[in-house]
Amino acid sequence: MTLPGNDTQAGIRRRNLARVLQAVAAHGPLSRPAVAARIGLTRAGVAPLVDELLRAGLLAESGPAAPRGRGRPGSELVVSDRGPAGLGAEIGVDHLAVCAIDLGGRIRARAAVGAANRNSAPGPVLERLVALLVEVTGRIAAEGLRPAGLAVAVPGLVARGGTTVVHAPNLGWRAADLAPGLAPVTAPANSPAVPLTVENEANLGALAELRPAGADGGRPGPPPDFVHVSAEAGIGAAVVVDGQLLRGARGFAGELGHVPVYPDGRRCDCGGRGCLEQYAGEAAVLRASGAAAGRAAAGEAGPGARIALLARRASDGDPATVRALAEAGTALGIALAGAVNLLDPRAVVLGGALAGLAPWVLPSLERELTLRTAVAADPARAGGPAVTVSRLGADGPLLGAAHAALRAVLDDPLRSCAPADSPPVRTP
Amino acid sequence: MTLPGNDTQAGIRRRNLARVLQAVAAHGPLSRPAVAARIGLTRAGVAPLVDELLRAGLLAESGPAAPRGRGRPGSELVVSDRGPAGLGAEIGVDHLAVCAIDLGGRIRARAAVGAANRNSAPGPVLERLVALLVEVTGRIAAEGLRPAGLAVAVPGLVARGGTTVVHAPNLGWRAADLAPGLAPVTAPANSPAVPLTVENEANLGALAELRPAGADGGRPGPPPDFVHVSAEAGIGAAVVVDGQLLRGARGFAGELGHVPVYPDGRRCDCGGRGCLEQYAGEAAVLRASGAAAGRAAAGEAGPGARIALLARRASDGDPATVRALAEAGTALGIALAGAVNLLDPRAVVLGGALAGLAPWVLPSLERELTLRTAVAADPARAGGPAVTVSRLGADGPLLGAAHAALRAVLDDPLRSCAPADSPPVRTP
Repeated sequence: MTLPGNDTQAGIRRRNLARVLQAVAAHGPLSRPAVAARIGLTRAGVAPLVDELLRAGLLAESGPAAPRGRGRPGSELVVSDRGPAGLGAEIGVDHLAVCAIDLGGRIRARAAVGAANRNSAPGPVLERLVALLVEVTGRIAAEGLRPAGLAVAVPGLVARGGTTVVHAPNLGWRAADLAPGLAPVTAPANSPAVPLTVENEANLGALAELRPAGADGGRPGPPPDFVHVSAEAGIGAAVVVDGQLLRGARGFAGELGHVPVYPDGRRCDCGGRGCLEQYAGEAAVLRASGAAAGRAAAGEAGPGARIALLARRASDGDPATVRALAEAGTALGIALAGAVNLLDPRAVVLGGALAGLAPWVLPSLERELTLRTAVAADPARAGGPAVTVSRLGADGPLLGAAHAALRAVLDDPLRSCAPADSPPVRTP
Repeated sequence: MTLPGNDTQAGIRRRNLARVLQAVAAHGPLSRPAVAARIGLTRAGVAPLVDELLRAGLLAESGPAAPRGRGRPGSELVVSDRGPAGLGAEIGVDHLAVCAIDLGGRIRARAAVGAANRNSAPGPVLERLVALLVEVTGRIAAEGLRPAGLAVAVPGLVARGGTTVVHAPNLGWRAADLAPGLAPVTAPANSPAVPLTVENEANLGALAELRPAGADGGRPGPPPDFVHVSAEAGIGAAVVVDGQLLRGARGFAGELGHVPVYPDGRRCDCGGRGCLEQYAGEAAVLRASGAAAGRAAAGEAGPGARIALLARRASDGDPATVRALAEAGTALGIALAGAVNLLDPRAVVLGGALAGLAPWVLPSLERELTLRTAVAADPARAGGPAVTVSRLGADGPLLGAAHAALRAVLDDPLRSCAPADSPPVRTP
């Protein structure tokens, strides 16, 4: 009898290798018996899987040294701090950033520059991004790490599974394929190709929240059913259901910024009226706070400066800024009430720039959300979803990109990684 | 090495039995080679599975009679028209309905009565429902069918996986466990227990749309990414992603009726303001159309009479009714624009009572949806999701319930069905 692909011996072995690597990545250091217990295999079943991952350079031994000639009874397994690295990149409206993480989720190198990307053609933006990527890959190569994948976070719609930005209104990009411009990094001379992923920044921010708690010191992340809201120039959301991103039929899910909040309200660039972005987007809040005049200066000061300006004014008690942020919270609460009534998530997570503005945005947001989700609130538990603030803040999309770039290794350890004895990647 | 549950031989066999039965249910009559081709197994692999399903009485042979002593080369497989039946029941605000379908999805018996269920206690409502169920099970028992499951559609929130209606505002029910009241049907004396499912009616309406096209003569259903909107007294939605219902963390997803449409608008019973139900719910439309006075009379005339009254007035050109339905369409379009921006479904399906009112609701609904989802519309394809009208109309939730009741048989044919030689179920 033929078996479906997943049920073949090779398929089962591949899954089990992935489960061993993922268990050690999330919870290591782990002894071999602890790995076996965690993934429900026998110790005899785990041993050859561990050996194969050690040979491939994906796992390493730590812990007490082995008594000579007696095997290594007290040894523990960790993921390798050499070998594959995930490259994350972020194209923001006013900055570019790159980071590299190792299999353990540790940031091994990062670089960022301010950049005026609004209405800049993709070509020059990608040239500057390539320069940052070359800098970062050079630094990690010196530490024995090679890029296993590159994921790029963009503030716009990306065709599902593709590398083309379908529409990024705040960059002014339409139908921009990023693959050719990134070829110097993804198809280097004399080195293996580096798989490229392009993804909406809100989606990547949400993926960063999903990382195992062990990866950044044990603080638990949100439960795997949540709506993650992030803002840079626009407002995006990512819907995570049972730990999986809901991408939509064409990959365009999560356009919270264009959910109608006041249907007869302000005209939006999208052609609609009263979209959330017209009340809680960065430009709207800057205008309402009277801080729009300071914008050019803030733009020169690098990433996040405009948000920092708002946070500073609000913490100084500037009435116009405090009012503008409260109104943004009201609009966010109305839009999120719709999302919560539709999706019944366990939590709403404020990420990206919103994380830094949470003290002034949250009270009105929570008031609207509570008022408008009563029917969906469980009377027994007296409440709807928890509203939390991302522990990653504005770093979320960049870290999420780096994690997404490593995902292929964690899901299929031996296919996506060159054997340990292959020649090292050359530094460009 | 231990294998995860799904990878055991028994697990694989169970899945393959289900795939054979599902293939024949959706596409039969099928020859054995056609079954093998459709599910990607060899003919030798399929033969013992088919034999086991024939022995269990779940499959039957049709087609040309077998030449004596030569096997049955021209025989084709169909699902049995005896054996397990799915019982669907619907508790509406003004009616009760029951139907039974066989494995082929054919309706074998149905019964309905008008009933004034609003603010009636669950006990008496369930007593009347049990009487209808007894009538229907008696009729199908005479045809050799036995109930394999009962699913009940209710206009309210149901705890995920449970039998308790957490809140059904239009019935006035809170924390009502339906299991005890239905015990005469689900735990009959001298017969096997009948598993009970209680589910939100909008979810079941959406499940009915998911039935294989073969089940009702080949008309294709909507693609498996859609938002299904239905209305009885309230308005509910079901979100289907990759063919699966999105239920939400607590099972409360789909509360489209309480999505804010005009945030400073009319007060809603839920405690919010400007909820969709206040503009497009049945009571709101009846009030706005001036037809509310005819309501008591219509209530006596049985299920759907109020909707029929609206449709009659609108097709007679009554200006107040036409205007009321157009305003309902506008409100629906605004709420659905939010849902489409968030979820990017392939289609929006109007079901339940809305299907019958589509001619007057659709134009304004589509206008709002197009205006407010431009950013999520694929420029290459110039459009957002298709808006379609359910082919099942007001029958959707009831049929969906009957299908849900059969689901356990189709997913695990041998566990959930008594062997063919077990004593027949007694008619109560």
